[in-house]
Amino acid sequence: MAAVALIQGASRGLGLQFCKHILATKAQVTVVATCRHPEAAPHLRELSAQHPGTVTVLKVDVTREQDIRDAAETVKSTFGKLDLLINCSAMLHPSGKGETSLRDVSAQAVLATLSTNAVGPLVMARYFSPLLVKGSGGFGRQPQDQCQQHSGILVNMTARVGSIGDNGLGGWYSYRMSKAALNMTTKNLSIELGRGRPKIVCVSLHPGTVNTELSKPYHKNVPKDKLFSAQYSVQCLMNIIDSLSIEETGKAFAWDGSELSW
Amino acid sequence: MAAVALIQGASRGLGLQFCKHILATKAQVTVVATCRHPEAAPHLRELSAQHPGTVTVLKVDVTREQDIRDAAETVKSTFGKLDLLINCSAMLHPSGKGETSLRDVSAQAVLATLSTNAVGPLVMARYFSPLLVKGSGGFGRQPQDQCQQHSGILVNMTARVGSIGDNGLGGWYSYRMSKAALNMTTKNLSIELGRGRPKIVCVSLHPGTVNTELSKPYHKNVPKDKLFSAQYSVQCLMNIIDSLSIEETGKAFAWDGSELSW
Repeated sequence: MAAVALIQGASRGLGLQFCKHILATKAQVTVVATCRHPEAAPHLRELSAQHPGTVTVLKVDVTREQDIRDAAETVKSTFGKLDLLINCSAMLHPSGKGETSLRDVSAQAVLATLSTNAVGPLVMARYFSPLLVKGSGGFGRQPQDQCQQHSGILVNMTARVGSIGDNGLGGWYSYRMSKAALNMTTKNLSIELGRGRPKIVCVSLHPGTVNTELSKPYHKNVPKDKLFSAQYSVQCLMNIIDSLSIEETGKAFAWDGSELSW
Repeated sequence: MAAVALIQGASRGLGLQFCKHILATKAQVTVVATCRHPEAAPHLRELSAQHPGTVTVLKVDVTREQDIRDAAETVKSTFGKLDLLINCSAMLHPSGKGETSLRDVSAQAVLATLSTNAVGPLVMARYFSPLLVKGSGGFGRQPQDQCQQHSGILVNMTARVGSIGDNGLGGWYSYRMSKAALNMTTKNLSIELGRGRPKIVCVSLHPGTVNTELSKPYHKNVPKDKLFSAQYSVQCLMNIIDSLSIEETGKAFAWDGSELSW
């Protein structure tokens, strides 16, 4: 049975690249690509045309619980399971620029960022974990001990600036708070979804600074060899995903495989 | 000049006890007590009557930016400064009970909890930090080196369950996420408000499990010697606050003075 991967936030950037990478490298796979506006996602339409019958595009705005519930129903009735869920969509701040000081902080902007970056992935987990439990373990590394094998993998895209212990610069209140909350989500999910059988592996991954819309305003401050292409970052992250087992659940890893502190 | 302490969320529980404790133990002090409904806060009215001219009660709902801005204007025009700000108000979950599993998760409840527990204290910091900069350093421990002295102290009430690294049980998604986000807020504030001069000391404090409304549904699970009275907890926390200097900024401490991991 083909593995089923769902990439949430797939219209561009890392999410789109995850879809391309999985389609290009994995035999026997079906990709469910979600985004807010499928009608305005030309790259996803193109990909879908190139891989007929293998790519399903669904409309999901992660701030709308009903969208998520509907998408889970569709995946359930079409595939009956999920092997990999990657939550990609994120915003730096509604304005596109992170706060440089307290003066830039507004409750509304912080809440909007928390809603997309932390609450959305949690609600995705709520509705898709029953499908991940039914997964065939099509991604990651399965240990020989059957009790330790996993049915599915859940990935939340985090960021190093979401590490409280690593925070030396400050600023970016909304984004940092949202990624810290997301890291707690991953940890909490790993406990709840690692208890029973079959198990679901839950991790946070940091992609490095990637040449995407989110980081665009800051590219000029990033040394060239530290600004990754989405291709390079996704290649690194898929290497990590391919190596995951239940032993790694609840942790956060950077693109180079190093573990992030909380 | 009298020290000015603002206790946010002061109508009951820890906040009310902080007011009582400071009034009972500190000479030359003015207390600003804020709560959502001053007209329905009998204990605060009583306290105000017992200490005429020393207690100012202001209406602040931390989810309303305008309330916070208005209160900051009032404190500015009345006292011109602030020496201590303690953000106390918090909710476990809008229902009063933390989520025991993913099935209990709703986006709306998570956002409401984040709004009160994490975004509220951040917006308080935004509007009151200019007054803390003007503080006289009336709380905490001042080192001899004047460059390292602080004008004010900002305390966010956190909880051990907000530590990602310490999370062994899972559950309580909303509350855990909100306290992780709040810990990031404290860390971020400590960086921004520790840079200039005068400095503001920013810490997160964990009160232990205290006999309050918030923890009420869980009292039967707590060993008697681990369920603290608000009096005992506040006594311990004020001992910590009295010992704070800029060296401790950005950290999280439990009631017994031990440092919490992120």
